[in-house]
Amino acid sequence: MKIDGTPFRSVWLDERDQWSVRIIDQTKLPWAIDMPRLTSVREVAHAIRTMQVRGAPLIGAVAAYGLALALREDCSTEAMERDAAMLAATRPTAVNLAWALERMLTVLRNTRAADRVQAAYREAGAIADEDAAQNEVLGTHGLPLIAEIAARKRAAPVNVLTHCNAGWLATVDWGTALAPIYKAHDAGIGVHVWVDETRPRNQGAALTAFELGRHGVPHTVISDNAGGHLMQHGQVDLCIVGADRVTRTGDAANKIGTYLKALAAHDNGVPFWVALPSSTIDWSIEDGVRDIPIEERAGAEVTTVTGRALDGTVANVRVVPTGSPAANPAFDVTPRRLVTGLITERGRCDASPEGLLGLFPERAP
Amino acid sequence: MKIDGTPFRSVWLDERDQWSVRIIDQTKLPWAIDMPRLTSVREVAHAIRTMQVRGAPLIGAVAAYGLALALREDCSTEAMERDAAMLAATRPTAVNLAWALERMLTVLRNTRAADRVQAAYREAGAIADEDAAQNEVLGTHGLPLIAEIAARKRAAPVNVLTHCNAGWLATVDWGTALAPIYKAHDAGIGVHVWVDETRPRNQGAALTAFELGRHGVPHTVISDNAGGHLMQHGQVDLCIVGADRVTRTGDAANKIGTYLKALAAHDNGVPFWVALPSSTIDWSIEDGVRDIPIEERAGAEVTTVTGRALDGTVANVRVVPTGSPAANPAFDVTPRRLVTGLITERGRCDASPEGLLGLFPERAP
Repeated sequence: MKIDGTPFRSVWLDERDQWSVRIIDQTKLPWAIDMPRLTSVREVAHAIRTMQVRGAPLIGAVAAYGLALALREDCSTEAMERDAAMLAATRPTAVNLAWALERMLTVLRNTRAADRVQAAYREAGAIADEDAAQNEVLGTHGLPLIAEIAARKRAAPVNVLTHCNAGWLATVDWGTALAPIYKAHDAGIGVHVWVDETRPRNQGAALTAFELGRHGVPHTVISDNAGGHLMQHGQVDLCIVGADRVTRTGDAANKIGTYLKALAAHDNGVPFWVALPSSTIDWSIEDGVRDIPIEERAGAEVTTVTGRALDGTVANVRVVPTGSPAANPAFDVTPRRLVTGLITERGRCDASPEGLLGLFPERAP
Repeated sequence: MKIDGTPFRSVWLDERDQWSVRIIDQTKLPWAIDMPRLTSVREVAHAIRTMQVRGAPLIGAVAAYGLALALREDCSTEAMERDAAMLAATRPTAVNLAWALERMLTVLRNTRAADRVQAAYREAGAIADEDAAQNEVLGTHGLPLIAEIAARKRAAPVNVLTHCNAGWLATVDWGTALAPIYKAHDAGIGVHVWVDETRPRNQGAALTAFELGRHGVPHTVISDNAGGHLMQHGQVDLCIVGADRVTRTGDAANKIGTYLKALAAHDNGVPFWVALPSSTIDWSIEDGVRDIPIEERAGAEVTTVTGRALDGTVANVRVVPTGSPAANPAFDVTPRRLVTGLITERGRCDASPEGLLGLFPERAP
């Protein structure tokens, strides 16, 4: 998508050398648009772990490029398997990471060592291109949800609430939850987005507001506490969120707090949709609340907040008294009973085993 | 309650002059314990509006003292009615403010002008003392809820989740939601509190964590997004929150986000109690979601966060891109169907018209 008119992706090969990997450092947004160059698998692992890149589809694509960088240093099977395992362990909840690395290994295990570097770049590039293409298609499948409400509301804009950042920055391009919104906006449909701040890391305030603002989509930032009240008072027409892992039954792990918004949507009759490319589906898991591993991140993400100080510098302030500990589960799981439906690159379906198998019949046991 | 062993109230008459009003400036906590001296009704109105004092019971007591200060300047009926109306308009949602001022006026309208100042200080002192005493009794009525779970859990601590600050800082002393917790802790019952950060103003992180920490109660700060996940995984035994206005039917307005926690508690079979002195009940309202006025505060409370910078100074950082607007409804309403029960100074009851009339039969129509 565009930043002030210029098209961007969230990961690409450096234009000059065509082998190092460029990303937008998302820990610096919205205050600086910094595009570091990653030249080793260690730098890639660091970028994923510290959330310079984040978002389930994006970390899959970046990890794929990370394996290509690893193979440049050592293209032996042993090193390849070790580096893939190291990358897979950087973050536990999003399944796209494991999915992308498994896809890479499936190709590379059948490639002789000397050809692996070239094959790895080809496959990583395919993963990135397919993600961008799939999300654009996903946006097209989600667009009617907004267009139908717009037709009903006539002149008034459609109010969509989203949590965290499931926009183009969370994927290679287009985004998942935001793809239908970009499609609607670009088609001239009046859409306004309620952007959940998304503490503790503020991906909504920092990234979603940045994306939408720079693309020109009307939006309003709210605290994570506000969405229920807005839904009680008819100010939300539709919720769309992304996902980090969706079970074969339709349970959806997403950024912590998503479950609370799903409860409020259910309580107020507001449609609650989860948008995801199929790489986010974990076909091996049935009960998401029980079986999806939830990353516990550092308490310091809760006790401190990063922002721009009055003097223009980016500063970190402590918001919790010294001596008070903090807990920081990074995701929660929304049970399928609270999900109106799923939006995928193959279309929309119920959040159910039957719904998913209807779109992905090749997954039938 | 105590700060590092020293007993405090949140409002008191200055020890030296016995007429000016001392408060703890809650916008400076937890980083500085500043105790400004208020000497005029204008200073009192400013302190309430800017939330130097906040919490439904406390702003009632402080407004009562504010009227006493007003009468020192002009004890005419006309000025008294005008200043009372001005104080009542400082914040719209908490009903204790109107309740305390109405109680003051009922006495003062029947007092001749020359005696009003003395009568006003006497009545304001009574309001403050009664609030402290009622909340202590309220704590005694809430204590069995914790003690029963403690007996069931044996050695493990009882995990109580609370939202915002309904502790001694929100009242004159003891607090509402925290009173049963202080009673349990002081009685040697193992209790651990999950403290919701409570964006946008962070009353949980700044005030509840401060109170609990300085009194020695074990606690952990969490983002407002985390409570649902903790409840899904059996890590919350009980929720207790305060209220700013409770209808005669049992609907409860409280800090924005309370409704989301009530939904999660209901979804996971976690008891959800609302603690309030009877001055918080609005006997004139039936439907809380429809009829309780919700204060809309400045968007700047959402776009910025205050905390302690690395150099020890208190700083304000911006967390939302320039140009992105923010909305800031300050309260929401939890419908009675989600409330397990109410804890008042007269005991516990169902969140229903019958429940409340059972404790307050004098309110029967």
